[in-house]
Formats: sequence, C-alpha cells, structure tokens
Amino acid sequence: MTRYQQLAMHLAQRIEQGLYRHGEKLPSVRSLSLEHGVSISTVQQAYHVLEEKQLITPQPRSGYFVTPRKATPPVPRLTRPVQRPVEITQWESVLDLLDTRLEPNMMQLGSGMPNLTQPTLKPMWKILSRQAQRQATELLGYDNLYGVVALREQIARLAIDSGCQLSVEDIVITTGCHEALSVSIRAVCEPGDIIAVESPSFHGIMQTLRGFGIRAIEIPTDAVTGISLEALELAFEQWPIKAVMVVPNCNNPLGFIMPEARKRALLTLAQRFDVAIIEDDVYGELAWDYPRPATLKSMDLDGRVLLCSSFSKTIAPGLRTGWVAPGRYRDRVLHMKYIATGSSNTLAQHALAEFIRQGHYQPHLRRMRQFYQRNYSSFSCWVRHYFPCGICVSRPQGGFMMWVELPEAFDAVRLNRELRDSHIQIAVGSLFSASGKYRNCLRLSFAITLDDRVEQALAKVGEAVERAIAACAGEHSPQSMQHEILLAK
Amino acid sequence: MTRYQQLAMHLAQRIEQGLYRHGEKLPSVRSLSLEHGVSISTVQQAYHVLEEKQLITPQPRSGYFVTPRKATPPVPRLTRPVQRPVEITQWESVLDLLDTRLEPNMMQLGSGMPNLTQPTLKPMWKILSRQAQRQATELLGYDNLYGVVALREQIARLAIDSGCQLSVEDIVITTGCHEALSVSIRAVCEPGDIIAVESPSFHGIMQTLRGFGIRAIEIPTDAVTGISLEALELAFEQWPIKAVMVVPNCNNPLGFIMPEARKRALLTLAQRFDVAIIEDDVYGELAWDYPRPATLKSMDLDGRVLLCSSFSKTIAPGLRTGWVAPGRYRDRVLHMKYIATGSSNTLAQHALAEFIRQGHYQPHLRRMRQFYQRNYSSFSCWVRHYFPCGICVSRPQGGFMMWVELPEAFDAVRLNRELRDSHIQIAVGSLFSASGKYRNCLRLSFAITLDDRVEQALAKVGEAVERAIAACAGEHSPQSMQHEILLAK
Repeated sequence: MTRYQQLAMHLAQRIEQGLYRHGEKLPSVRSLSLEHGVSISTVQQAYHVLEEKQLITPQPRSGYFVTPRKATPPVPRLTRPVQRPVEITQWESVLDLLDTRLEPNMMQLGSGMPNLTQPTLKPMWKILSRQAQRQATELLGYDNLYGVVALREQIARLAIDSGCQLSVEDIVITTGCHEALSVSIRAVCEPGDIIAVESPSFHGIMQTLRGFGIRAIEIPTDAVTGISLEALELAFEQWPIKAVMVVPNCNNPLGFIMPEARKRALLTLAQRFDVAIIEDDVYGELAWDYPRPATLKSMDLDGRVLLCSSFSKTIAPGLRTGWVAPGRYRDRVLHMKYIATGSSNTLAQHALAEFIRQGHYQPHLRRMRQFYQRNYSSFSCWVRHYFPCGICVSRPQGGFMMWVELPEAFDAVRLNRELRDSHIQIAVGSLFSASGKYRNCLRLSFAITLDDRVEQALAKVGEAVERAIAACAGEHSPQSMQHEILLAK
Repeated sequence: MTRYQQLAMHLAQRIEQGLYRHGEKLPSVRSLSLEHGVSISTVQQAYHVLEEKQLITPQPRSGYFVTPRKATPPVPRLTRPVQRPVEITQWESVLDLLDTRLEPNMMQLGSGMPNLTQPTLKPMWKILSRQAQRQATELLGYDNLYGVVALREQIARLAIDSGCQLSVEDIVITTGCHEALSVSIRAVCEPGDIIAVESPSFHGIMQTLRGFGIRAIEIPTDAVTGISLEALELAFEQWPIKAVMVVPNCNNPLGFIMPEARKRALLTLAQRFDVAIIEDDVYGELAWDYPRPATLKSMDLDGRVLLCSSFSKTIAPGLRTGWVAPGRYRDRVLHMKYIATGSSNTLAQHALAEFIRQGHYQPHLRRMRQFYQRNYSSFSCWVRHYFPCGICVSRPQGGFMMWVELPEAFDAVRLNRELRDSHIQIAVGSLFSASGKYRNCLRLSFAITLDDRVEQALAKVGEAVERAIAACAGEHSPQSMQHEILLAK
C-alpha cells in the first residue's frame, strides 16, 4: 500500500468513527502534511481517493468537507397541477423519447420496455415455432372481432386473481393496452369532452386524449395513496367530466398501489357523479406482494369500469396483445375497435393462449416480480448514492418504474439532451403532464439487467443532475436555489 | 337410356338447333304424348329433366317455355347516391357480417378474407418457425414507432411496380390497412368535417368515418371508370370537403381499375381545390393484368396523397401488417398511429420482410392473381346461370369481389336473413353506402376454393334471389316490378 493510500484509509476510518463529522470541514492540505509528515501531493492524492469514494466533497475556495451521510430520500409530496381542463401538448418530447427506444448503444433508463431476457420466457419461442409448424390456415386469417376465444378464456381465468368475475363475452382483445385505452376513451367521450387524470399520468394516455381532441383535468396525486379523492370530487362538482382515467395498481409513473378503501371510495364517487372509470391495469400483475391487488373492476357493480390491460409488460410487448373488459360500454368499444384496426394479430393470440394454458405464465410472472423487486433494491441504492441530496424518490410497490423529483427550478429537458450525448435515455417528467408540468422530474426504468454499465450510467446521470442543479442555481434564482440546495444537503 | 331420357335429349337437341326458339312456348304435354306415342307421365318426366337443366321454364297456367338464353348481364350503371353529406349508419349490419366471418359451416361468399390455402404461402410458415427458433429478443420487444426498417425497405422496393419512388422514411407501418386508413382519416380531418367517398364504398371506411364523427358525401361512381369527376367537382364547389377517399385499383366492391387519365384528372382536381386524397390500394397488387396499375401516389407531386395498403389481401390478414405512405401528413399520421396502437406486431413484420427478401412474394402474387382470375371465370358463369335475368354484374379487373345489382325494389337484407339459415354468407349492398342505399345489391367474394358445394350454394342464392324478386314484385309495386322482370327476361 502506498503512502497516500494509507493516509486515505486512516482518514476514512476517522470519518467512519465520527471523529470528523458529516458536513464538517477537513483539515487543510498543508496542516495534514505537517501532522502526518508527508508531502503536500501525498495529502492531495489521499483526498482525491476519498473524493472518488464520495466520502468527502470539495467546496471551491473553501477546501474539503465530509460528505453528509445520505438518508433515504423522501417520497414526492402530493402533486399540485393546474386545476382546470387543459389541451395537451408535449407530443414532440414523446416522439423524441420513442425515437431513442431502439437506438443501439443507448442505455435504456426511460422507456416502458420490460425485461425480455429471462429463461421463463423461453417456452414462448417453442410455442410460436410449433404454431408455425402446425400450418393451420386460421392462424393467418382474420380473427374474430372480439378476439380468439381460447385467449379470452385464459384472460377470464386469470382475472379471478384480481377479484374479477369475467366471462369470455366480457372481454374484447385489442392491439396492446394502448388500443384498449384508446378505444375506451373513444367509447365514453366525444371530442371537446373532459377526462380527469392522475397527475403525473402516463404519456401515452395524454397523447391519446390530445389526438381525440379531449381535454384533461389533472388531479393532484399522492405518491403513496394515489389520486386525491377530495380534489377529484371538487373537479366533478365544477366541470362536466365524462370519465376518470386511473392506474390504481403499480401506477405509472409513481409506482403506488391505491389502498383498497380508497379504491372503493373512488368507485362510489364515480357512481355519485355518474362518471365512467377507465382503469389501466397493465402493471397490476407485476405487484411485488402476493396476492396481487384487486382491480377497481372487481368492485364495480354497475359496469362503469372499463378495465384495460395487456401482456406487454408481463410477457412481451412485440406481440401487441391487450384487452379491455368494457362493462356496459361493450357495443361502443367493439365499434371503436373495428374502426381502429379491424381485428388483432391471430398468431400472437393463439400463442399467448397456449403459453398460459400450458402453465408457463405464473412461473414467469413470479420470476419477473422478484427480478424487478431485486433490481429496485440495487437501483434505488445507486440513485441514493449517485444523486445529490434534496431529491424525492417514489417507492414503487410493483412494476419497474421510479419517479425522481428534483428541485423546482431544475430542467430535465436540458438534462435529457446532455445525457443523450452520453447515450443514456431517461424519460423527462413533463411528458407526464398535460400542461408540461414536472419538468423538474424524471422517470427511470429499472427493467434492464443491472451491471457495471448501468451503475456507471446512473452515476453519470447523478453527476449531470448535480451539475444541472448547481447551474440552474446560478442562472435562475441564485439565492433561493442556493438556499434550497443547502437546506437539502 | 329410359324413354323419358330419350325424349328429353331429343327436345334438348331441338332447342339447341333452334327449332324451338328461346322464349317460345313448347308443345303441350298432351300433344307431345300424341306426337311421340308415349305416356303423359313420360312427357312430364322429360320436361322435368329439361327444367332441372334450366333449358325450359314452366309458367304457371301457361305451360313450358324455352328458357331465354342468358346474355352476359350488363354492368351496373353510374350510381346515383344522395348528393349531400350524411351521417353514416349501418353499424349493426356490419357487425352482423363480421360475426359470421368465422362461423364454421358457413359458406363465405360475403367476407373480405383472401384465399390462404395456396402452396406458395408455405414458406411463410417456415419463416415464422425459424424466426421463433432464433429467439431474438427484439422480436418480442416494442417495435420502432415507424415500423421495422427491413420491412419498410421491402415495401419501398415493391412500390416501384406501382410507379412509386418511396424511401424508408416515407413509410409508416400500421396494424393492417384498416389502421392505415383510420390514421389517415384522423390525420387530415377533424370531427364534423366532410370526406367525399366513392359510392358504393368499403364498409370499413364508412364505419371509420362514422366513428370519428366525420360526414361522408357519396359521389356517383361508374362500375368501369370509377368515381365521377364531374360529380366530385360539383361536390368540391358546394361543400367544404377536406379529403376524398378512393380505391382506384381493383376497387372494393366494384372491381374496376380507374383509367390512368382519370387518375391524373382526379389528382389535378384535388390540387385545384386543395383536398387531400386517401388512396386505398389494398387490392392493387391483385390486378389480373401485368404490370400492375399505377397508384395515384405515383403521380402525386405535392404530397397530398396518403397511400394506404397492407399484406392482408396478398399474403395473410391475420398478420395485421399494413402501411401508409402519408406524404406531407407524415407527422400527424405518426401521432395518430402512436395514440391508436403504439406500435405494430414485431414478429409479423420481420417474417413478412423475410418472405419478400427471400423472393417468395412475387411467385405467390402471380399464383393468387391467376387463382382469382380463374375463380372469377367459373363464378361469373354460375352467377349468370343460376341468377335470374335482369341483373347487373360488375366486371372486376382484379381482386376477388363481384357486385351484383338486382331490381330496385329488391331487399337484400331480407335475402341475407334467409340465406343465413342455409349457412350462406353474403355481403348486403347497403353496408357500402353511408345512407343505407344499395339495399338491392350484393357483394360476392370468389376467394374460396371452388367446388360443388360452392356451386350449390350459388344456385341456392340464385333461387332465393328469384323467389325474392317474385315476392317483392307481388308486394311492392305489382305492375312496375312485373314489367321490369318481363323486360329483363
């Protein structure tokens, strides 16, 4: 061990033992050089090692300080979106995100792509191959408008886990959950109508509303308990809202599971104001705790819930197979499905039905739940480690998404551009707001297989965030930002 | 040979030789019995044989007549739809048609399903199976929003045959031609807008317009030369029409190929009134003559044509893979595609790209063209033979659809109900009009492999048509109908 490494270890122990306290200024280079009888450059090298380990932090023109020990960052507070219906923007940013989704060498921390490398997915290949070998003409023909019966049977069976009693006739197969949501919106709304959404809310939903000329009213949403029922009630009273769109289980992007009592209260509220509920359950099966949480649909007595889901997050998005259980809106959903795509891919439906029927789905789901939960542990540690203090981070209860809230003046759009050059993709928070709010937020995905490259990428994001915070502190409101950062540290 | 068979042959020869002329009354049973020295019942049996062969026709209380030799029925005249924008109806009837699409034992003479039993399709199974064996993760992942590059390359290459210079960037893959049309409509229209359509026009387009709250103005259309440019110009002058939607090549349902000069004139007209053109070319590759006809898109200089197509009619509809070349409307088409389904089935796209790349597409296409053309020959003979006189029948130049026009008072909806009980599916003409016109028309498909069962089914349809004409002649306007039938005979 060289002299500077010895010195670094000695100092690290002192910090560990609390002899130098967190936030305290360390001795100057000169005084340490005298104290230990080593050269100035040896002390400098030792400090450099400690800095790299993030045990100490240099402050320009003030010397080195012991890095404050980081507590688990708090969850974001209840959001405060604009309380009136707005036209949706942000399409350019969404397109930008989608464009990088398949770029090779791009570290995918922003997209909704699930992990597709687990061995429990292998039987799907075998099934697809065997289906093709069977050469059954019906696999190439137009499908039934409602979808393949064998698949609807399996979906009805699986729905029992979420508390739902569905029959084959209650289910319409769609081209992914995307189409399920899209036809549901069209089934209950006309252009010009207003839909209430969680805030933040999945950008796909936002853009669909925009595309159909529907306005969104963003409802304050808690990162732990979900959409604010109080705010929703107020909105129902003030505006002629046609539907409310929620992701109550493993919310995208916040990750919460809405407590069951609140789910019931939401349903009661919707009944009282006679509003339809569009429930997106696409991450619901990926809740880390077993048994999986109940859907709103399972508590629905008068058919006002349109339950939308797919196998895109649980099995494979490329199969483009989703479904909707549209309750009392079935006829209109069917019409909207017909005009959107006619029917769905037949081969994929048969393959999925077979995958579930042969018993591959539950083991795969168990593995994916564990995989994402484990990934979350490492990933959240890295975020805590590499990101500056003063941030809020969601605590997902399922799925593979994490929401990071940075100081108010932070500009994630600019950060995104910077990271893009380093081949790192993140999802900018403003995509998740109708009005472009949450520019100070990021959504990070931990679906990819974690390795050193991911850690390094996250370290880079953390650094860039830190730099950006410092920069915007300088630019925007020097005093308040500086104050905010100091408070946060 | 029995005595009555001998007599029947003898009489048949006389008819053949013109000794008994078409439409002429045959000798009475009694006089023939005397002439040939046979019993009354022998003559009756002989007449029965000739009747079954449709050489003679009994007229109640007047005896037997030589069946008029049937000339090739004329093509339908220029249609005369209502000349104002209308809200589209008929969804219930479309749903009814779709519901029977997969019913086993149903003789499919009404649906748009292509023939999927030809050996040139076999390589597709091999490719699908091999794709699955490759287990490449990207086949299960989200596709690029624009579609798989390899497939877009092949589509651009194929487009040269229709006179189009397209690059990979000009093409957006969709979930079938259905989605291509749907996103194109949404890209150029807002709810409340007016689109001009051919009359009759594909029911899928009609329902899509209805679903988006767009009104249709039906333009008179000739069964040989296509949409009336004169009527279209008048409509452009009178109404604020946003787009015109046409199927200029192997039109559905009329089967015509619009002459090239008229295509150019249509384009000039659209330019003059600054109207977008949505061109549905889904049957274009199935034109029976080679080389295939040019698309409007190939003559488009200012990007106003949105060319929509798919592999649903040429290869397999179950793959749900179509595309749109949206010209200047690309950004909006992309947005609409994103909100409708997100992306398309990845595996199907790769398989199709491979099918074409390996050189299987052209041989398959050649075979299908010949197959449908041959089918048309037999099928149209059967129609001439089994259907009553006084009908008009389209002369398709490609694809696998035939349009049959019956006397004005005929009710195809009622006929359809009757045939349904005999497990025969036809497409009722009123599906092809925004306002439910063409209730006296049928669209018949000759995509299925022809055999005795098909001939028998067609004979049944013919009989039912004859009965229905007789019945409606009695019910509706006894004199005029009777007159019409007599004239027709």
